[in-house]
Amino acid sequence: MTTKSPEIHEPRACDAALARAFEFLGKRWSGVILGTLRDGPAGFSELRRAVGNISDSVLSERLSELGSAGLVQRSVVAGPPLSVTYSLTDGGQALVPAMRELSAWAKKNLPPPA
Amino acid sequence: MTTKSPEIHEPRACDAALARAFEFLGKRWSGVILGTLRDGPAGFSELRRAVGNISDSVLSERLSELGSAGLVQRSVVAGPPLSVTYSLTDGGQALVPAMRELSAWAKKNLPPPA
Repeated sequence: MTTKSPEIHEPRACDAALARAFEFLGKRWSGVILGTLRDGPAGFSELRRAVGNISDSVLSERLSELGSAGLVQRSVVAGPPLSVTYSLTDGGQALVPAMRELSAWAKKNLPPPA
Repeated sequence: MTTKSPEIHEPRACDAALARAFEFLGKRWSGVILGTLRDGPAGFSELRRAVGNISDSVLSERLSELGSAGLVQRSVVAGPPLSVTYSLTDGGQALVPAMRELSAWAKKNLPPPA
């Protein structure tokens, strides 16, 4: 509205969808679980070992959040022994290209862990 | 090494770089600040307004973390009035394609905020 120096006073908005993505995927373990399922379905114990440092109850909670968000599905595989596997839904699969980009970016541009 | 049912017992590892990306970018506001700087340099107050709901001290802290990680640079623009702007470094710019993908993915696949 005013005519203040235009070069830096343009109104700026944050990208709400991007903010939502970072909030959702940045929740401890959520993104990592999705990233681990990128390579195919996995059982609960396999996921827990791959993610490392996660308790059973937190992993259960995250898997059910990811399920409610429609990104991960739980399937019962007829046995014997009967088993349960978790896999990405189409919505979860749709994240794979972005995860590949993010991973490549992090390798090049993020400082190594302390 | 063993010959247990191969279909779901392959050892699985999480992608450490991806985990690091989600941890780093998922830290409250960090990803959003980078996303906001995608459109060009911004001053402190402009960033604070765009991000919304962030205090001056937290924004300062995040900008200095992003600076230490080599993703955001601070420039003093000779005035008058003298001003300071923040912009993405090459490392920060390299994240832009992944942010675009993430944002498009979130629009389609994430449940709307409660």
